[in-house]
Amino acid sequence: MDQSEGAGLSTTAGSIFKIIRDQGPLFPTDIVRKTGLAKSTVSVYVDRLIAVGLIREEAKPGGKRRMLKVAESAGYVIGVDLGQTHLNVGLCDLEGEILDSVFGEADLLHETPEAILSRVIEAARNLSSRNAFEASALFGIGFGLPGPVDYVHGVPVSPPVMPGWDRFPVASYLAREFTCPVFVDNDVNVMALAERDKGAAAGERDFLFVKAGTGIGAGIVVDGRIYRGAKGAAGDIGHISVGDDETLCHCGNRGCLEAIAGGRALASLARRSAESGASRFLAARLAEKEEITAELLGRGAAMGDEESLRLLIAAGKRLGDVLAKLVNFFNPSLIVVGGGLSNLGERYIASIRESIYRRSTPLATSDLVIKRSTLGDRAGVTGAAILVLDEIFSQKNVGSLMRNIPS
Amino acid sequence: MDQSEGAGLSTTAGSIFKIIRDQGPLFPTDIVRKTGLAKSTVSVYVDRLIAVGLIREEAKPGGKRRMLKVAESAGYVIGVDLGQTHLNVGLCDLEGEILDSVFGEADLLHETPEAILSRVIEAARNLSSRNAFEASALFGIGFGLPGPVDYVHGVPVSPPVMPGWDRFPVASYLAREFTCPVFVDNDVNVMALAERDKGAAAGERDFLFVKAGTGIGAGIVVDGRIYRGAKGAAGDIGHISVGDDETLCHCGNRGCLEAIAGGRALASLARRSAESGASRFLAARLAEKEEITAELLGRGAAMGDEESLRLLIAAGKRLGDVLAKLVNFFNPSLIVVGGGLSNLGERYIASIRESIYRRSTPLATSDLVIKRSTLGDRAGVTGAAILVLDEIFSQKNVGSLMRNIPS
Repeated sequence: MDQSEGAGLSTTAGSIFKIIRDQGPLFPTDIVRKTGLAKSTVSVYVDRLIAVGLIREEAKPGGKRRMLKVAESAGYVIGVDLGQTHLNVGLCDLEGEILDSVFGEADLLHETPEAILSRVIEAARNLSSRNAFEASALFGIGFGLPGPVDYVHGVPVSPPVMPGWDRFPVASYLAREFTCPVFVDNDVNVMALAERDKGAAAGERDFLFVKAGTGIGAGIVVDGRIYRGAKGAAGDIGHISVGDDETLCHCGNRGCLEAIAGGRALASLARRSAESGASRFLAARLAEKEEITAELLGRGAAMGDEESLRLLIAAGKRLGDVLAKLVNFFNPSLIVVGGGLSNLGERYIASIRESIYRRSTPLATSDLVIKRSTLGDRAGVTGAAILVLDEIFSQKNVGSLMRNIPS
Repeated sequence: MDQSEGAGLSTTAGSIFKIIRDQGPLFPTDIVRKTGLAKSTVSVYVDRLIAVGLIREEAKPGGKRRMLKVAESAGYVIGVDLGQTHLNVGLCDLEGEILDSVFGEADLLHETPEAILSRVIEAARNLSSRNAFEASALFGIGFGLPGPVDYVHGVPVSPPVMPGWDRFPVASYLAREFTCPVFVDNDVNVMALAERDKGAAAGERDFLFVKAGTGIGAGIVVDGRIYRGAKGAAGDIGHISVGDDETLCHCGNRGCLEAIAGGRALASLARRSAESGASRFLAARLAEKEEITAELLGRGAAMGDEESLRLLIAAGKRLGDVLAKLVNFFNPSLIVVGGGLSNLGERYIASIRESIYRRSTPLATSDLVIKRSTLGDRAGVTGAAILVLDEIFSQKNVGSLMRNIPS
């Protein structure tokens, strides 16, 4: 077989696998229809993909015909979700489903990268051994962390709240311990992938994922892929200036969205309302020595506390005003809001939605859907696993793999 | 040949053509290196591409070896650039070079679509006949217009300043008169394509093109292609709210960027300074019954008029403040500023640049280049021609073409 035919054939195998991964389970006839390839050709490639263990047949309940899907148990991947205060490590199958996990705490401001990564290594080894997986079955590790990442080299770049992590070689550090590829990305990008495959954006090719939590960030998905920008900093909307508020941000600038509508800002507004008594609900929590957090605003609003409601509506408006500008620029069909603040309740989401509708052009909002993430705290681990799967199962990689296997 | 091999082979032909189109002229050995294909394979496909007339050999001056490039004279395309006050129609070769053109005026507020399109048809026919082209050699027509466009159907959608054009079937209207495909897009997107292939963004895969003129808009290029958004409204930054200015915009909203820093806004500020005598330069122009336009601010500033300089710096700052937010969001490596206001001079561009640097994150601006377009009034026609070439010479189309030709 000359090289050109090899390229053609492996491309075909890659395309067939991609369709099965994205849209499966599928009957062979579905693949014929979707690719325009001859039935006999599809049959040859499907047999080869089964032979190498990438796909498998699944009997349809009650039916005789068999559907094709990713052989999800042919191997596994590890997803790591590192946040300001948590470290979650999950063992996932080849469809990104979490099989087992270790969810724990972390203190990014005070722990060294080495300390945290050694816990990642330990957790990964424990998960593998207690699930009786061979090291060779680990196809890859995905890692999401809360800061900009140079994706090609797998290193954080100037992360604002992770002392010691700037340019720390996360990917190569882990790759030394495991003989599999390691992919590192910003946590918000990783969560966007989880929404694309398992969450509120399932089936969407172009959308924005907005994480509203302690930090505020966006994941931009264009044509099904994360758009990372020139420096891996795309989506860094937490430091967009809101214009009329001069609150100092930890980044050194004033009036950043995150400093005004992020989790810490809301907690501090809530504390003020508790101390002043403007909110009876919050004042009561303070009197009971409860920690005054942003999350309490959601509870307060749900219980009819007007001040809590007022604060969360104002926070939603702040975020919505910034998103309105981005909607004019990017014209997405869908915005998914996740992160801790998305749990503040439907009134918070509604406030974001109203601000966007009011201040974007009618055309850009005519079919715009704004919804809440439903993935909860699994989003980070799931997304990190999907990051790996996207890479190792790219059309090109599957193609190359097939080319190296004798037919 | 079964269909799968056909798909493989035609993909290969498409890939080779794309490399030659994007990077040519090239030696066959360059193509071998860039594709990883066997020398013999490249040779077979190159011969076929030459046989169908898509590429040609070009003798290198003084050398014996021959380079491969697009057969630019194998046909032609027409590029149409419709603006608020101009209608430019150009005859271009298959590399997007303008061979001949008819540049004229238009009055979008008062002329009907039919009146304008009949002038387009007349101009296209004149250009073809005076250059002795057969109708069959016209490969396509590209059309840029100043408003959002439903690209798939080739119709303007809610264009704010084009009465009668909403949903007017521009593409099918022209396709009835010519037996070639017609592609319609927003003028700013089209200008971005011109920058990508012939202008300040040559060789860039991801960048923003900003048109600052009567209107203000952006063209978003991701991985070499225009990102149009869900409704074709992506890049519509002229109606982003600047927050602290309540000037009424023609869109009905208040405080839109365009209403504050667009060409009309600057002309009206200039008129005020002429009338009040705040600018001696502008007052003198007014006394001489010259029309007071935004363009005069550039002339005034160049001649040392402080008020003109102050106004154009303030306008640059307004635009830069909005772009700073988009830089945080999109993290481009390059912003090209075109449109009439870009001719206001280097101080205007510098003011935009300063605002972006001051208010974007350091990471997002660390290697950000902001430069002025150099294409002038050819950008619209050139871009419209390139729009056609991108479509008809897509890898897929070239592949299909090759498949239908007996080897």
